[in-house]
Amino acid sequence: MEYRKLKDQDEDGNSAADDLESLRGKPLSVAASLGGGPVDRKWKRKSIVTLALTVLTSSQAILIVWSKRAGKYEYSVTTANFSVEALKCALSLAALARIWNNEGVTDDNRLSTTLDEVIVYPIPAALYLVKNLLQYYIFAYVDAPGYQILKNLNIISTGILYRIILKRKLSEIQWAAFIILCAGCTTAQLNPSSDHVLQTPLQGWVMAIVMALLSGFAGVYTEAIIKKRPSRNINVQNFWLYVFGMVFNAAAIVIQDFDAVVNKGFFHGYSFITVLMILNHALSGIAVSMVMKYADNIVKVYSTSVAMLLTAVVSVFLFGFHLSLAFFLGSIVVSVSVYLHSIGKVR
Amino acid sequence: MEYRKLKDQDEDGNSAADDLESLRGKPLSVAASLGGGPVDRKWKRKSIVTLALTVLTSSQAILIVWSKRAGKYEYSVTTANFSVEALKCALSLAALARIWNNEGVTDDNRLSTTLDEVIVYPIPAALYLVKNLLQYYIFAYVDAPGYQILKNLNIISTGILYRIILKRKLSEIQWAAFIILCAGCTTAQLNPSSDHVLQTPLQGWVMAIVMALLSGFAGVYTEAIIKKRPSRNINVQNFWLYVFGMVFNAAAIVIQDFDAVVNKGFFHGYSFITVLMILNHALSGIAVSMVMKYADNIVKVYSTSVAMLLTAVVSVFLFGFHLSLAFFLGSIVVSVSVYLHSIGKVR
Repeated sequence: MEYRKLKDQDEDGNSAADDLESLRGKPLSVAASLGGGPVDRKWKRKSIVTLALTVLTSSQAILIVWSKRAGKYEYSVTTANFSVEALKCALSLAALARIWNNEGVTDDNRLSTTLDEVIVYPIPAALYLVKNLLQYYIFAYVDAPGYQILKNLNIISTGILYRIILKRKLSEIQWAAFIILCAGCTTAQLNPSSDHVLQTPLQGWVMAIVMALLSGFAGVYTEAIIKKRPSRNINVQNFWLYVFGMVFNAAAIVIQDFDAVVNKGFFHGYSFITVLMILNHALSGIAVSMVMKYADNIVKVYSTSVAMLLTAVVSVFLFGFHLSLAFFLGSIVVSVSVYLHSIGKVR
Repeated sequence: MEYRKLKDQDEDGNSAADDLESLRGKPLSVAASLGGGPVDRKWKRKSIVTLALTVLTSSQAILIVWSKRAGKYEYSVTTANFSVEALKCALSLAALARIWNNEGVTDDNRLSTTLDEVIVYPIPAALYLVKNLLQYYIFAYVDAPGYQILKNLNIISTGILYRIILKRKLSEIQWAAFIILCAGCTTAQLNPSSDHVLQTPLQGWVMAIVMALLSGFAGVYTEAIIKKRPSRNINVQNFWLYVFGMVFNAAAIVIQDFDAVVNKGFFHGYSFITVLMILNHALSGIAVSMVMKYADNIVKVYSTSVAMLLTAVVSVFLFGFHLSLAFFLGSIVVSVSVYLHSIGKVR
């Protein structure tokens, strides 16, 4: 629960560039040292949340592989999603309770809100819902490995929407780095059947692009919501985000799995791995929010890209996976991209 | 014979960075415009030789595919190599004759030389000979497609030797660009069986690295020889380089194909395509020398890398080749590398 220790602070809102340091191994030692000025504290906080997101995301993928090896999904995915949102809500409330105890209730950390503040909170959850619905239809045009490849379009859409909606600038070197990040991630995921994706019909491409835009927009919009009120406590902001997440996922349960839940029970088929996955998803979700608050969407994309590579390397040891030449080449390109992003700050 | 029109000029020896402009489509229009100062002329000359090398190298590969489609090699490779060297010698002499006619014989363009000048000229030819001999042995450890992949190590070895031997600096962005150039070229050449290369035994890796170093060293050493006397006419320098090329290739004929040449004749099995290939190799060889004189090894590497991509694209139209997803990804990475190299100049 690293995030509960973090104090809320104003966000300068334009210092994404040096966050990437955290992906190059420095943060652990720095985070361990004590003291330092406000810049130091900010940098430390960014590093910690970015590192947390990277580790959580890579362990997420490993849990998925593990659960697949252990057998089929026995539980209903909609109840698991609801549980994740509920757990995130509970964790945010627990964090808030602690803060209220220590600092008392202030304007920034009180739970009550205004319509003006809360009205935008359902939008990201709604966008993700639409994207998840589309996901069922895109498989009519693209197979699952092809979909994994096309998902890398998210990187480009996030970069473009970050520029257009948040009006934040990347330097030309950072743009170049972002393009090769997308190419490198895709390269690392290539397998002998990847070329099928080139036969994707136009409808498949359009849906993939729409999904990438929805996903990118949801991410960028979440950042906009969270950063709009810099002094507002992140746990309050998270609480309201997750409340709407619960509402949308409750609707999904009713529509898709109502009978199963009534007949077999809400937690039917949950195993130890299922609980671990829910816990991991909840913590990852909170880490994403923290990265949005203290860093930005670009850092999030780099963090999850590096996590994808870490997952593959860890899978070699855990599951005896073989790394392909394409993976090595993609990893080199992603590493250079991280380096270029960090040296290419807007001056 | 574009190169005959180029006048010899002093070389500033440290302006590789902007040559890459020529790979981004500008040179044709600029080369067509008249006039301009000495900087303009230098830039024009660099652009023309770089463009010539790119076009010649890509058409070289296309001729090879064409000749393979037309049937097996009927001619002896050693006589073809000798013919290339002889043709380059003849072209250099023809260019010199023209210059002597126009400008008279000077210290810089006279053919006669000193032992001090000429003693280093056999070295590149000897290095290439050793490399070509090794080539026969490496196939005991690596298959032909794997060898194509490993040849990309040349890019890295050239960069390192360029830094160490010529003591020329690349900026950190240019180094990053060079690393992704190597990764991008390799990615573009990936095919479903490329992963075999990861099973290459240690001996194979050692030989591949030695060959990359020999090839890189030969290239860098040629540049050092040619740039050592900036005012010396390039056609004289080429003449002496190619004379030793003829000597080494004559030795190769005697060792490998003496009987065949005596019994069937020197030009046995030559077809129209063979003649075209010899002409193309000769012109490409001269273009390489010109790039060494007026640009450098880094430009040469970029030029041949872009040529590799051009070849593949042209082959789609000529031979109905299919481009793989890996090719697209590699091309994106190579393009970004070209861009980064050009904006990443040492200041």
